[in-house]
Amino acid sequence: MKNYTHTTIPVRTLASGQILNIDVFRFEGDPSVPSAYIQSGMHGAELQGTAVIDFLIRFFTDHPPKGTVTLVPAANPYALNNKTGEYTQGRFDPTYGDNWNRLYWDALNNEDGIDIENLVKTIRSDAQNSIQKILRHELTRKLEQQLQKPLTEMGYGRKLALTLQRMAVEADSVLDLHCASHSVRHVYAPEYARQTVRYLNIPYVLFIPNLFAGAMDEAVFCPWWTLSQKLSVPCPVEAYTIELGNQEAYSAKDARGDAMGIINYLVHRGTCDPIKPKGRDSAESLFACRLQDYKTIYSPTGGLCEFSTVTGGIVPAQEPLAVILTKAGNEKISVALPYDCIPIVQYSSAALHQGVELLKVFSKWEVM
Amino acid sequence: MKNYTHTTIPVRTLASGQILNIDVFRFEGDPSVPSAYIQSGMHGAELQGTAVIDFLIRFFTDHPPKGTVTLVPAANPYALNNKTGEYTQGRFDPTYGDNWNRLYWDALNNEDGIDIENLVKTIRSDAQNSIQKILRHELTRKLEQQLQKPLTEMGYGRKLALTLQRMAVEADSVLDLHCASHSVRHVYAPEYARQTVRYLNIPYVLFIPNLFAGAMDEAVFCPWWTLSQKLSVPCPVEAYTIELGNQEAYSAKDARGDAMGIINYLVHRGTCDPIKPKGRDSAESLFACRLQDYKTIYSPTGGLCEFSTVTGGIVPAQEPLAVILTKAGNEKISVALPYDCIPIVQYSSAALHQGVELLKVFSKWEVM
Amino acid sequence: MKNYTHTTIPVRTLASGQILNIDVFRFEGDPSVPSAYIQSGMHGAELQGTAVIDFLIRFFTDHPPKGTVTLVPAANPYALNNKTGEYTQGRFDPTYGDNWNRLYWDALNNEDGIDIENLVKTIRSDAQNSIQKILRHELTRKLEQQLQKPLTEMGYGRKLALTLQRMAVEADSVLDLHCASHSVRHVYAPEYARQTVRYLNIPYVLFIPNLFAGAMDEAVFCPWWTLSQKLSVPCPVEAYTIELGNQEAYSAKDARGDAMGIINYLVHRGTCDPIKPKGRDSAESLFACRLQDYKTIYSPTGGLCEFSTVTGGIVPAQEPLAVILTKAGNEKISVALPYDCIPIVQYSSAALHQGVELLKVFSKWEVM
Amino acid sequence: MKNYTHTTIPVRTLASGQILNIDVFRFEGDPSVPSAYIQSGMHGAELQGTAVIDFLIRFFTDHPPKGTVTLVPAANPYALNNKTGEYTQGRFDPTYGDNWNRLYWDALNNEDGIDIENLVKTIRSDAQNSIQKILRHELTRKLEQQLQKPLTEMGYGRKLALTLQRMAVEADSVLDLHCASHSVRHVYAPEYARQTVRYLNIPYVLFIPNLFAGAMDEAVFCPWWTLSQKLSVPCPVEAYTIELGNQEAYSAKDARGDAMGIINYLVHRGTCDPIKPKGRDSAESLFACRLQDYKTIYSPTGGLCEFSTVTGGIVPAQEPLAVILTKAGNEKISVALPYDCIPIVQYSSAALHQGVELLKVFSKWEVM
Ligand SMILES: [Zn+2]
Ligand SMILES: [Zn+2]
Ligand SMILES: [Zn+2]
Ligand SMILES: [Zn+2]
Repeated sequence: MKNYTHTTIPVRTLASGQILNIDVFRFEGDPSVPSAYIQSGMHGAELQGTAVIDFLIRFFTDHPPKGTVTLVPAANPYALNNKTGEYTQGRFDPTYGDNWNRLYWDALNNEDGIDIENLVKTIRSDAQNSIQKILRHELTRKLEQQLQKPLTEMGYGRKLALTLQRMAVEADSVLDLHCASHSVRHVYAPEYARQTVRYLNIPYVLFIPNLFAGAMDEAVFCPWWTLSQKLSVPCPVEAYTIELGNQEAYSAKDARGDAMGIINYLVHRGTCDPIKPKGRDSAESLFACRLQDYKTIYSPTGGLCEFSTVTGGIVPAQEPLAVILTKAGNEKISVALPYDCIPIVQYSSAALHQGVELLKVFSKWEVM
Repeated sequence: MKNYTHTTIPVRTLASGQILNIDVFRFEGDPSVPSAYIQSGMHGAELQGTAVIDFLIRFFTDHPPKGTVTLVPAANPYALNNKTGEYTQGRFDPTYGDNWNRLYWDALNNEDGIDIENLVKTIRSDAQNSIQKILRHELTRKLEQQLQKPLTEMGYGRKLALTLQRMAVEADSVLDLHCASHSVRHVYAPEYARQTVRYLNIPYVLFIPNLFAGAMDEAVFCPWWTLSQKLSVPCPVEAYTIELGNQEAYSAKDARGDAMGIINYLVHRGTCDPIKPKGRDSAESLFACRLQDYKTIYSPTGGLCEFSTVTGGIVPAQEPLAVILTKAGNEKISVALPYDCIPIVQYSSAALHQGVELLKVFSKWEVM
Repeated sequence: MKNYTHTTIPVRTLASGQILNIDVFRFEGDPSVPSAYIQSGMHGAELQGTAVIDFLIRFFTDHPPKGTVTLVPAANPYALNNKTGEYTQGRFDPTYGDNWNRLYWDALNNEDGIDIENLVKTIRSDAQNSIQKILRHELTRKLEQQLQKPLTEMGYGRKLALTLQRMAVEADSVLDLHCASHSVRHVYAPEYARQTVRYLNIPYVLFIPNLFAGAMDEAVFCPWWTLSQKLSVPCPVEAYTIELGNQEAYSAKDARGDAMGIINYLVHRGTCDPIKPKGRDSAESLFACRLQDYKTIYSPTGGLCEFSTVTGGIVPAQEPLAVILTKAGNEKISVALPYDCIPIVQYSSAALHQGVELLKVFSKWEVM
Repeated sequence: MKNYTHTTIPVRTLASGQILNIDVFRFEGDPSVPSAYIQSGMHGAELQGTAVIDFLIRFFTDHPPKGTVTLVPAANPYALNNKTGEYTQGRFDPTYGDNWNRLYWDALNNEDGIDIENLVKTIRSDAQNSIQKILRHELTRKLEQQLQKPLTEMGYGRKLALTLQRMAVEADSVLDLHCASHSVRHVYAPEYARQTVRYLNIPYVLFIPNLFAGAMDEAVFCPWWTLSQKLSVPCPVEAYTIELGNQEAYSAKDARGDAMGIINYLVHRGTCDPIKPKGRDSAESLFACRLQDYKTIYSPTGGLCEFSTVTGGIVPAQEPLAVILTKAGNEKISVALPYDCIPIVQYSSAALHQGVELLKVFSKWEVM
């Protein structure tokens, strides 16, 4: 018997008059147990997360989670369907250029956001618990208000973001599954999650500060982090952006491994029962980099590029990361950095114009 | 005899190894007279501004300006060359989605910007004039520093913006010529330029506050505006974004009229001698709207759209602005607003998805 | 009461798993009366034809046709939904480049087509009427066979074309509604339809020979034309490609006029009763050009282009058709032809690369 | 000392007014020795061929060829520069959809082509040698005529093709280097080149008939093949399309191996001296497939696809080639064929719409 509900939410009427939907799978659990929300594919060509959620649907059917788990396997069908040649141009709105993952609602904005300072003051006498209830209630209420605005006041990307955020706001753990260009698996974690991030079993971690720049993870954790700091208590809600390797790639075999890390994390969070045989408890060693030390290396020229190193390995200062041939017959141009680095993401194609994002690297890191 | 210099600046080596350049035309004038910088086409398919600059090159050849005038007729050749079908996708970086006009350097940023407060304090004793000299010197010096960074630290759009800003920073008047979708001519002006904006002879004005959001005009005027406010003096530098009608359109005849407004403004600014026969001194009446009252109306559904009104006219509340047919045979959906408005920009195509920018309208305005 | 059926046919499962459909409206009529099939939008951004069919649905609801009329208002939803910037790239498959209107099945191909020569020989004794019945039966049967091939043997564009052709093959009149770039209304007619084409009330006519190049009109008329020639009888089936002005444009008001021409034609064909008050019987004078005299004029250089003439007017030899500015400050380049012409289609944007289709012109024509 | 000339040929003035060029490297050799022409990148994102030519330029500098060798490393800079997201949409004209490799001039067309039948008749008495001289002379002369047409009569793609064909027509061996989607290296060879194709050291061969479909190889060999058949002599001119693996990929290391196969072939043809130490003489065993047995397998549905097999291996009938997940939670759909096959090319992305080219396979082959 199916132990989940499968609903669809219409998200966009197309020029042809047809309506694109997102699918929502919900495993209803004990409301007193921490819940989770997992989505994938906000940028379209991020397929591995969909594979992971496909695995999780089957896994949770056999091993029902204790807490409620909500799964959105393809968060942005419009972006997924948008092809040029055989590739998917999914990362941004093809009409306006907006990055789909920069359109979430800022819960702490000055205009129609929540005044945490004030919230804390007003209810200083309340138990920490009830303040948290009030915060969630307020977040939910305000997102509902946003969603009730007339359609003429919301672009597609914004409305989609609000729709997803409305579901995510109910959860205690939020995992936003993405893929990057050619890349090694890595995760963006809030700085306060230094211990729990280990359980995801992803060895490359970017720690991000309490700063809203429009993304889902920030949209979820910023208000909770701010409240927790004011109350000097641990932050009860966690949100991560997980980058599951190469865009345009999809592997059911790898999805199993990716999903196992997520399940391991959910066990640790109390959303799932431990599984047997128990897997590796957590990543043995993490390479952790602060967001400010995550550097984009732009291509210094145009031409054909060959990477000299693989993602995930440590490259000493001055060692070539890539070699670029501007034209056949010309001398090749070597790209090296004055500092040691770990390449995390590489440009997807060997043909590149000057000034594109050749590499993203950890320029400093700690092993933890 | 040619009374100007024509230089080219390489801006991007392409994948093919060839280099795209921008052309710079410079009419050297009396350094004690206010200077001007005019560019066009930062978004690629903004052709009318190029036509205007083509006119100005010929006009200034016959009627040399008193002050130095620098002209960049096609600021972003990469964006101009980027075709899909017969149309130009020029508005944003086709690889990353960045709006080309959001990448300028913020002169007042906290990291490597100018501390105006401090500047004023330090040199309180100085004449206003010398403070202004120091500000311009500092802006120039810091832009030079930015441009001297290694190429691996600058994306194409950023480097292009810095290159243009470096030229604009020397001028007393900066005009950034753009086009929008189907639109009536309009101009973005800083609020302090209520009087001078009239001289441009463009009847629709958007007044913008002292706030940096990445655009050329803001990049130019924000530091000067801030300094002037601190010194309680009029702002000596002006910058405008001028929208010269429809993207993809180009008319030499209209360019003459557009250029005459610009020349009229430059006469008023002291950069050019009055021309004879003297044209209309300034726009007789302006429709002026504050940026916060400039509303984007999103398409509430997908389908085929027919606009019921033309840009530039006043539309009473509840009157249909557009009618959308989701599918042949369906009832049509009317789009109206609960308030009077003036439509300024309309979506370029009659086929649209839900949630695109159907219209941009003045929701409140004054006639001045 | 609705006097038509409205069905949907699934045509493509997208990457997101959702299915795009086409809508089919069918007004069932007397089977002994000539029938008609009208479709629009095979190239996506061809919106005026959809407006026309929307009008026809409402018109036929009030004035039921005598013969069966089948209407497909948006034949290619995939192409219609494919946006880059605000414009629609609809003309060809964004993955493979195939022109959507070159993928129909050639009824006379040597491999699995119909051998008309043989058909005529075998049944020489039959009445002309029964041969025609056999041809239609054969065409239908073979199209069914094509459609029953496994999906792994058919690309999307091919399957879509077969699906549409299967419906069109049953009709006596087939109208394929398109739009071109900036253009005057014009029609492609088979040479044998010199008289009937007048009834469409479209003043610019291109007469095409009995040659299959992949388009719907040719797919429909080639076998009938060939049979009629062999039997020396008038061709009973007619097919036209009608170009209803500018792509990306949509006007309900113009749609009324366009539809009236089509209704007038259907009255003449016997599919509809005459309407009252009777409209103009047929176009008073037509400008008719043979396909071989329809010339594409390529842009001799890149730059910004301004057309000097409007579509539909006669332009004398040597008179400039367009003026191109390669760069601001350069001499402009005039484009003229050594012969008189009538421009029919113009490039959609004023920014163009060398070697694009600047114009399509009648280089010779007769007035009829 | 440089033993080659390096010239550039302007091929397209862009909308920005700048001109794109192609580079031509020419190693002048003994005119009595067979010559070769090698180009790469007609489809833009075909980078490995450019790497191969870069290698050949350096190799021939050290080991001058005996016969003349002409190298064009990036035949279509416009296609190479055309990016959407990080990928290159190079395969077809982004404005018109034309496949860049279908625009060559058909030397045997009825309108302005060469009448081989007649040529043979007229000069029956001549030595075979002089007939060949006459053919080459005629081909050259007619291509010159084509190129001298006004620019208004030639689209960019056509003019580019003619420019390249004009150079290729002088050579005795023509190698057109391409890449496909995800693919194993393979070569298109004319059926008469059964023996010589071995020397290229590429194990997968497609034998194509004497039929012009617009491609460079056909444009070169069709007239020679036809003449040779009429004279019953071996065909003196050879032309191949070589597919050097994945589009968007570039490896200097692999380029060495690819180039060695080409050099081996040129040695066999007499254009180059044998190299020492001598490499493998020729491929040990080839999998050869006739063009008619080369099948495109279309995706039967849309969704996320995982290939179950690798390119180049034999897959038994009924064994899954790919598995498609239409939506998370759905049953997966297996794609298998009723016959044994060798997959040669796979779709580049794991996200696909119904009806795209999932695979190209050898459906029958001989090992030779
Ligand atoms: Zn992403
Ligand atoms: Zn602009
Ligand atoms: Zn069309
Ligand atoms: Zn190719």
